[in-house]
Amino acid sequence: MTDPVDLTARLVRCPSVTPEEGGALVLLEEMLSGAGFACTRVDRNGVANLFARWGEKAHPRSLGFNGHTDVVPIGDRDAWTHDPFGAVIEDGWLYGRGATDMKSGVAAFAAAAVDFVRDTPPDGAVILAITGDEEGDAIDGTAALLDWMAEEGERMDVCLVGEPTSPDHMGQMMKIGRRGSLTAWFTFRGRQGHSAYPHLALNPLPAMARLMDRLASHELDRGTEHFDASTLAVVTMDVGNATTNVIPAAGRATVNIRFNDAHSGASLSDWLRAEAQAMAEATGVGIDIRIKVSGESFLTPPGRLSDLVSRAVQVETNRVPEMSTTGGTSDARFVKDHCPVVEFGLVGHRMHAVDERVRIEQIEQLKAIYARVLRDYFGDGAD
Amino acid sequence: MTDPVDLTARLVRCPSVTPEEGGALVLLEEMLSGAGFACTRVDRNGVANLFARWGEKAHPRSLGFNGHTDVVPIGDRDAWTHDPFGAVIEDGWLYGRGATDMKSGVAAFAAAAVDFVRDTPPDGAVILAITGDEEGDAIDGTAALLDWMAEEGERMDVCLVGEPTSPDHMGQMMKIGRRGSLTAWFTFRGRQGHSAYPHLALNPLPAMARLMDRLASHELDRGTEHFDASTLAVVTMDVGNATTNVIPAAGRATVNIRFNDAHSGASLSDWLRAEAQAMAEATGVGIDIRIKVSGESFLTPPGRLSDLVSRAVQVETNRVPEMSTTGGTSDARFVKDHCPVVEFGLVGHRMHAVDERVRIEQIEQLKAIYARVLRDYFGDGAD
Ligand SMILES: [Zn+2]
Ligand SMILES: [Zn+2]
Repeated sequence: MTDPVDLTARLVRCPSVTPEEGGALVLLEEMLSGAGFACTRVDRNGVANLFARWGEKAHPRSLGFNGHTDVVPIGDRDAWTHDPFGAVIEDGWLYGRGATDMKSGVAAFAAAAVDFVRDTPPDGAVILAITGDEEGDAIDGTAALLDWMAEEGERMDVCLVGEPTSPDHMGQMMKIGRRGSLTAWFTFRGRQGHSAYPHLALNPLPAMARLMDRLASHELDRGTEHFDASTLAVVTMDVGNATTNVIPAAGRATVNIRFNDAHSGASLSDWLRAEAQAMAEATGVGIDIRIKVSGESFLTPPGRLSDLVSRAVQVETNRVPEMSTTGGTSDARFVKDHCPVVEFGLVGHRMHAVDERVRIEQIEQLKAIYARVLRDYFGDGAD
Repeated sequence: MTDPVDLTARLVRCPSVTPEEGGALVLLEEMLSGAGFACTRVDRNGVANLFARWGEKAHPRSLGFNGHTDVVPIGDRDAWTHDPFGAVIEDGWLYGRGATDMKSGVAAFAAAAVDFVRDTPPDGAVILAITGDEEGDAIDGTAALLDWMAEEGERMDVCLVGEPTSPDHMGQMMKIGRRGSLTAWFTFRGRQGHSAYPHLALNPLPAMARLMDRLASHELDRGTEHFDASTLAVVTMDVGNATTNVIPAAGRATVNIRFNDAHSGASLSDWLRAEAQAMAEATGVGIDIRIKVSGESFLTPPGRLSDLVSRAVQVETNRVPEMSTTGGTSDARFVKDHCPVVEFGLVGHRMHAVDERVRIEQIEQLKAIYARVLRDYFGDGAD
């Protein structure tokens, strides 16, 4: 039996802060190669990725796992009570950057897969698509793996992403979709002047304030069948004018929208541009807008794949996981264009924070869940 | 006859960038002492000021002039076509920092005063109150001179401030009052969070945007008998959040109000605090506010003093100066608590900009106007 806690600890000791590989993928490649997986490093633009397949290429029964070994920076080192790359275990917790997000998830599915193909070799393929670039721009991570797979004729029938999914309790939640994410950067251009002579200037800030108020006050929707309501957050507004007797020439504001399937990146972009244009016409202030759609919303409707995962979670945890579409984006947004995808993993305890840590029995429980998913997928579905 | 152009040039060559004395007040003290003025350096907190009186202390007929020798920094030296401290004369222009604001004004009234007391010694006193701190905080400048005068029993009957007052043409405008100025710094405090989970955060920026929109949209008044409408300018809004998936904990905004005699610093402070409190109650966002009243509005109603100056301007320029209350603040805001005060000076050509310059015939014309004010004040008022 492969010990997922030990594997997590060894991965945590690899300092793989995005985009550093840090030894994590090398370690996994060595282990998986030894277990009979065909491994390929799919690196792009300095980002390391690992594709590993046990079994036949493009087999119609191909279960994929997706995850990442890169981690966010440690932040304030002095605020950590344990070495962030030490993988110290204390009182049942394993401490370290990536302990929950998501070296333990990768360790759990890698350990489950290695044991499964050794003990009960299936008629089909088990695929692990592991990236070193999820926390960064992610453009050369899972996307690169999927591009490479398409070129090579590699495919997955279904895919399970091992990101942390539960807010509080193991087994509480799985994700069957994600809201989309869009960021818009606005620049407001007026005409500089002296505060005492405002009629000679064109202050861009009232237009900025009013537009941000309008956008923040707008109800995008009230939620859809599987999704919460879409949300818009004004994340920054900046001018940088330290001189109180000067009316500034320009201001900048940024909004981030998390949107459900009632919208698309295109429909929201149209709305934002129309709002900006109306404000520009009403005020004379020039308004530039730059928009980036990081991901469209998507949904894997409840069905075969979600039932498979839900049943495994229920058996191992005695909890019926909520089928949720909440939260930020994940690499599932790329995978969904390749095959049906759901997400299930640990409790997201202190993700991206100092003293990130994971309960070691939950790593073992997660391995058991993934092992049951493997058995049920390749078996007849009966327990 | 004292040459005001030569005196301007010698003052421009003193690099008296606030708070540096730069030799300017030393030069004036030497000249005025030689002409029979009793001179006192009234320095406070490292700021140099000069009080000069010809004639009897606290004489009921005491005409004062007020001005400053300090100048704003030169800015981009390479953008100047002439040495900013060179006082180069070319094509009838004298170039240099302070050429219009306001070493020429000081030179004009000093030259006029010296000639006047020598040629037609009046029954009364001529007072020159000249500061080295008008462009800075101004708290140890004219205010210090007036404090000292009160302690010493020195007084002026009326005062003429020599700041530039005309936008385009010599003699076009005098100032009989000024709007007040108030700056308010707002801090909005919410609760940081992830853009994907806005219900777990409290974004302070919509409250900031809405309050700034409300304040900027509010009509303070439509002007009063002698004043333009009060104005409010949002001068900056800052958050400094570069991370689009983070809802920030706090934002800051600053507004500057220029207000007429329909308001006071206190009434506007009350209004701003009430608006902030209402927004805080409506949104749950904590709103702190810090307010500084740089000066209350004031007015020297048209009458004896303004008529005296207006008549001198008319005779020397053939223009009837508009009695205005427009523009920023000036040291008249301090003088008005001591005695009636009006302002008249040059065209404010390129004040505070590169290539600040003054037409040399306008310096001579300004001296002639000030000389006529002296004659008329101490004479019977007839020409
Ligand atoms: Zn992650
Ligand atoms: Zn000035």
